Amino acid sequence: MRLAKAKRTRWVLLLLLAPFCSRAQQPAARPSQATVEDGDRRAIVAVLTAQQSAWNRGDIPSFLEGYWRSPELTFSGSDGIVRGWDHVLARYKKSYADRTEMGTLDFSQLEFRSLGTDSALLLGHWHLARTKGDIGGVFTLVWQRFPEGWRIVHDHTSAVTK
Amino acid sequence: MRLAKAKRTRWVLLLLLAPFCSRAQQPAARPSQATVEDGDRRAIVAVLTAQQSAWNRGDIPSFLEGYWRSPELTFSGSDGIVRGWDHVLARYKKSYADRTEMGTLDFSQLEFRSLGTDSALLLGHWHLARTKGDIGGVFTLVWQRFPEGWRIVHDHTSAVTK
Repeated sequence: MRLAKAKRTRWVLLLLLAPFCSRAQQPAARPSQATVEDGDRRAIVAVLTAQQSAWNRGDIPSFLEGYWRSPELTFSGSDGIVRGWDHVLARYKKSYADRTEMGTLDFSQLEFRSLGTDSALLLGHWHLARTKGDIGGVFTLVWQRFPEGWRIVHDHTSAVTK
Repeated sequence: MRLAKAKRTRWVLLLLLAPFCSRAQQPAARPSQATVEDGDRRAIVAVLTAQQSAWNRGDIPSFLEGYWRSPELTFSGSDGIVRGWDHVLARYKKSYADRTEMGTLDFSQLEFRSLGTDSALLLGHWHLARTKGDIGGVFTLVWQRFPEGWRIVHDHTSAVTK
């Protein structure tokens, strides 16, 4: 009976630990085959919506809250690669000096791809409706989950000209 | 003694399984704090170098070998988001109809960031030296490890105009 109990204990332990161990042995999820979980999508969309609202009330510093507040943040755009939250803020302030330049921002056609448990890729389109003429294009955002929430760690934004 | 053996069995099992289980409980590596391993960097640079050589001998289909051969491949550029290997090939062939358009390609200032075991982000600059006038800009490449090697699963390429 005691031997039987020992064997039973082993099986109970294996069954209890199996979910953790099988997860560790699985290969990393393929980004383009993996979808971002609904809760994470909602959290990321909430950050984007807050950014859009901030922009549309002319508040660039609040718009910047969606970005990783780090010297390692990167922004690739029409003037090359800008590094660091402070420099990205300065770039936005310079490029969009007033409300006329800023116009009304709209994001659309969002497309998520998981890059792992704590990272996600988001492709989409941006549009600025402006009295001086609309502009728009595409963006590639790399998001990362931080204790304070999802933040953009890399942004590549460009205009669509054709 | 049998009870002692049962306890010992439990501990041996726990110790044997501990490395797998602790790995499962660790949070995923932070992309911007994690570096891409040397072997992976070399493998990715080898793909880029092969792409550059293919481009510079006017061979666009071989240049495309660096991309994920999938309908899910995405390319964000001056004409929006192009989807699928075949369409990306068609876009390159249309945009660069002959050797004069293609010029001589050079990649520079490569900057790697890990996005997990099987994914990596690569930022960099591209330059085309052409008799009709040089052009250049920045790129954001999302790479993924496949059984056949590292391939680009998303490319955002844009011109630097300032």
